[in-house]
Amino acid sequence: MRILGLDPGLRHTGWGILDIDGSHLRHVADGRVDTSEKDDLSVRLLALQDGLAEIIEFHRPDTAAIEETFVNKNPTSTLKLGMARGVVMLAPARAGLAVTEYGANHIKKSVVGVGHADKVQVQTMVARLLPGIAISSADAADALAVAICHAHHSQTSARVRGQPIRASA
Amino acid sequence: MRILGLDPGLRHTGWGILDIDGSHLRHVADGRVDTSEKDDLSVRLLALQDGLAEIIEFHRPDTAAIEETFVNKNPTSTLKLGMARGVVMLAPARAGLAVTEYGANHIKKSVVGVGHADKVQVQTMVARLLPGIAISSADAADALAVAICHAHHSQTSARVRGQPIRASA
Repeated sequence: MRILGLDPGLRHTGWGILDIDGSHLRHVADGRVDTSEKDDLSVRLLALQDGLAEIIEFHRPDTAAIEETFVNKNPTSTLKLGMARGVVMLAPARAGLAVTEYGANHIKKSVVGVGHADKVQVQTMVARLLPGIAISSADAADALAVAICHAHHSQTSARVRGQPIRASA
Repeated sequence: MRILGLDPGLRHTGWGILDIDGSHLRHVADGRVDTSEKDDLSVRLLALQDGLAEIIEFHRPDTAAIEETFVNKNPTSTLKLGMARGVVMLAPARAGLAVTEYGANHIKKSVVGVGHADKVQVQTMVARLLPGIAISSADAADALAVAICHAHHSQTSARVRGQPIRASA
């Protein structure tokens, strides 16, 4: 199964793709879709949509996962983040993929083992779980963390269904 | 020129289409795209996108206008509204249309003549400016108000450029 993890933002949206085969995680690709603050909002949203559509078309993931957004105290930032998030969720939905949401603490717990881990710990652990690859950006690492979390969940679901699973990653 | 006005919301997104010919406004169509709270967020965003894409494909507007969103005190509502708004702005952008944003007070002033008008006054005035039509919902009336505001702006811009314009609506 191929998983697309997404870390949405209007300026930078991180993405990361993993294959899971039993308990094995294989890194496929990661990156970031950037938009320019100089452009109109609708142009930026279109750039996000087109960038993600291209990635989905090329890598053909089977499913997608996204972090539940941290609600900011600044309502204007929250609104902007919401707009980006709506477009980022739409891209896999347009391609017929299910989009699963995970809370930030849930992702941290899944990747690091504790829910209060900081960003650096998460990124270090992502690099450890996917050895030998150079992750392109912090946003891409966060997206890969979401994908890893989704992979662990899928393994747990499979285990519950009684499929043979090796030791978890 | 054919204008698409949009009033975004996750549950109900109002839309309204007007033609302007000189100072004449002609109502073309209006309606609402609804999504079900029972569905997953990504499914709801896809329903919004598909509904609007269909309307744009059918009515072929030349340009689009959207109300700047009122930032709610409840951050969770603001985030949801932002997500809907991002997808609603994306639909005309995907069709190559410019999307102009107008503040709520600006729209009220353009339609009613004062910036502090209430919703009912706006809806009454929209009905008066577009006589003989039955507007399908309050959300559609709000969307038509945005389109009327954009029409007035387009007329003003044309007048400034020295084009012949009859008395404004």
